[in-house]
Amino acid sequence: MPELRRDPIVGRWVIIATERARRPSDVTHVHEAPPQPGLCPFCPGHEDKTPPEVYVAGRPAAAPRDRAGWKVRVVPNRYPALKIEGDLDREAEGIYDRMNGVGAHEVIIETPDHERQMKDLSDAELTEVLFAFKARVLDLRNDLRFRYILLFKNQGHAAGASLDHAHSQLIALPVVPRQVLGEIEGARRHHDLKERCIFCDIVGQERKDRSRLIYENDAFVAFAPWAPRSPFETWIVPKRHESSYEAEPKERLALCAQALGTTLRRLSAALGDPAFNFIIHSNPLRDPPSPSYHWHVEVMPALTQVAGFEWGSGFHINPVPPEEAAAFLRKVAG
Amino acid sequence: MPELRRDPIVGRWVIIATERARRPSDVTHVHEAPPQPGLCPFCPGHEDKTPPEVYVAGRPAAAPRDRAGWKVRVVPNRYPALKIEGDLDREAEGIYDRMNGVGAHEVIIETPDHERQMKDLSDAELTEVLFAFKARVLDLRNDLRFRYILLFKNQGHAAGASLDHAHSQLIALPVVPRQVLGEIEGARRHHDLKERCIFCDIVGQERKDRSRLIYENDAFVAFAPWAPRSPFETWIVPKRHESSYEAEPKERLALCAQALGTTLRRLSAALGDPAFNFIIHSNPLRDPPSPSYHWHVEVMPALTQVAGFEWGSGFHINPVPPEEAAAFLRKVAG
Repeated sequence: MPELRRDPIVGRWVIIATERARRPSDVTHVHEAPPQPGLCPFCPGHEDKTPPEVYVAGRPAAAPRDRAGWKVRVVPNRYPALKIEGDLDREAEGIYDRMNGVGAHEVIIETPDHERQMKDLSDAELTEVLFAFKARVLDLRNDLRFRYILLFKNQGHAAGASLDHAHSQLIALPVVPRQVLGEIEGARRHHDLKERCIFCDIVGQERKDRSRLIYENDAFVAFAPWAPRSPFETWIVPKRHESSYEAEPKERLALCAQALGTTLRRLSAALGDPAFNFIIHSNPLRDPPSPSYHWHVEVMPALTQVAGFEWGSGFHINPVPPEEAAAFLRKVAG
Repeated sequence: MPELRRDPIVGRWVIIATERARRPSDVTHVHEAPPQPGLCPFCPGHEDKTPPEVYVAGRPAAAPRDRAGWKVRVVPNRYPALKIEGDLDREAEGIYDRMNGVGAHEVIIETPDHERQMKDLSDAELTEVLFAFKARVLDLRNDLRFRYILLFKNQGHAAGASLDHAHSQLIALPVVPRQVLGEIEGARRHHDLKERCIFCDIVGQERKDRSRLIYENDAFVAFAPWAPRSPFETWIVPKRHESSYEAEPKERLALCAQALGTTLRRLSAALGDPAFNFIIHSNPLRDPPSPSYHWHVEVMPALTQVAGFEWGSGFHINPVPPEEAAAFLRKVAG
C-alpha cells in the first residue's frame, strides 16, 4: 500500500509509492518500460492491456466496452502512485504524520492515433479531451475521501513521460498540495486587502500591457507570467472569474482548447518540439465558488537541467525574460 | 543587468538573468560550454581564465595571487546570475514587484586536481572546502545589501553542472528564498507550541528510531528524512542546536566533512556515481541566533526525470521508502 507522509517542518506531503519500483537500484526506471513497437497499450485493439475504462468519448453508449472505436479513453493507471481502495487512516509515528495512500491515478488517452501529439489535435478533438478531464473530476469528487485532483500532462522523456502515445494524467488526492494552498492563501490575502481577485488583476494588466501576451480569444488569454520559473513558461487563464475548472461549460472548454492548442503549437514551432509539462490549478473539490481563487493552466517546457538545485532552494534562475519569450511566441505560426 | 522579479500570487522571487543566454533559442545551453580537454579554467596554470580569486587555501599569504599552488580557490562566476555592483532599487510595475539583480555568484574550486570529485577528497581536504564556505559567508555578510547566501553544489549533467572539475557555488541574495522562509516559519510555529526546535526533535527521533539513520559521529548525523522528495534524499544535521552554518568552528566543520564525505561515497557506491545536488540551509545573514531554526545540509541525488510535474504541483512521488534507502546506505562501504 502506498503511503502519504508529511514533512514535519514545512508541511509538504509526499507519496511513498513503493510498488512503482522493486529495489532501490531500480529508481532510475520508476515508470513502466516503453512498449515494443506495435504493442502500445494505449492503441486501439490493445484495450485489454490496460485496466477497464472509466470513461470514453466517441463510442455509442450501447457498444461493448474496452474495444476499439473510441476517440478519448480514460483508464486507471496500471502502475498507480495511489490506490483507490481503503480508508484514509491517519496516524502519528512519533513527531511524524502518515496517511494511507488512498487516491485515484488515471490516464486520459487523448487520441487513438499513436502518431499524433496533443498539439496535432483539432480544436474539436482537444475539446473532447478537456471535457473528459471535467467528466472525471465530476465523477471523482463524489468520493468524499478526495480533497483535490491534479490534472497534468508530461510530454517527452525530459518531462517525465514514459509512453509516447498522447496522454494526460490525473491524480485524486486526500490532501490539497502545498503549492496549491500557497496560491490559494496568496490570492486570499490579496482579496482581503483589495476586494479583487489577483488573477483578474493579472489578466487585466497583461491585456493592457501586451508585452507578455501570447494569444487571446473571447474567453481565454495566454501569456508569459511576470516571474516565470523557466524559459517560455506560459499561463492560460480564463478572462471571466471562475474558481473551478469543472464549472466551465463545454463551449468555454472549446475556447480553452483553442488557447491550449495554439500555445502548444507555437512552443513546438519556436523550440523544436520540446518536452513539456502542464498542470491545471483549480479550487479544492467541493469548496464553494471562491471570489479570490481563479483556475488556470501552467505550461512549462522542460528546457533546462537545473531542476535539482531549484527544488532544494525554491529559487529559480531564468535566462529568458518573459517579454522576449512572448514576442517570440507571438511571431511563430500556430 | 539581471533582475529579480516577484510572483504576485505566492511571493516567489525569480532571477531573470538575461546575460546567461543570448537568444531565446539558446535556452537549452544556458551554461558555459564545457572546455576543450586541457583547457579547464579551474585547473592550476589557468588562473587567468577566471576572474581574480577572492579566497584561497593552501598558498602562503605572501605568494603572488592567481597562480598555481592553491588547494581551494574561490572566484566570482564568469557568467554570474547576479551582479555585484549596483543599488537595490526596488520598483513596482503595475501590480508587480521588481528589484535590481544585485548579488554575488561565486565558484568554490574544491581541489586543483581535475580528476578528483568531492567524494574523493580526504577529510582534511573537504574540511578546507567547508571552511572556505564559511570564510566567504563571513566576508559577504558585511555587505548589507545581502540577506541570504545559498551554498550549493551541482554535480553531473543531470544535476545542472556544466564543468566537470569539482566545484561548489554560492549565490548571495538581497532576499530570503521562499523555501527557506517556509522552513523558518514552520520551525517557529513548532517552537511557539512546544518551546523546542523541530530539527532537534527530528535528530532525537532519528537517533532513537535508527531505521532511517545512515551515519553518525560526535557532532553530526546523516539520515534519510521522513518524507523525502526523491529517492535517497539525505540530510546532514548538527546534533547540537546551531542556527547558522558560519557560527560553526573549524573542528566541527571537520566532523561535518566526515559526515558529508561518507554520505557522498556511500551514495556513489550504492547508485553508481549519480549526479546530485546539495544545498546548505542556514539562518538569514545577520539574524540573531534562533532558538527554533537549525542549519543543515540537504543532499539530493538526481535520479528521476519527473521534476517538471513536481515543480508545478509541489507534489512529490517517491518510489523508495527512506527506511529502505537508509538500510541500503548503511550497508555499503564509504
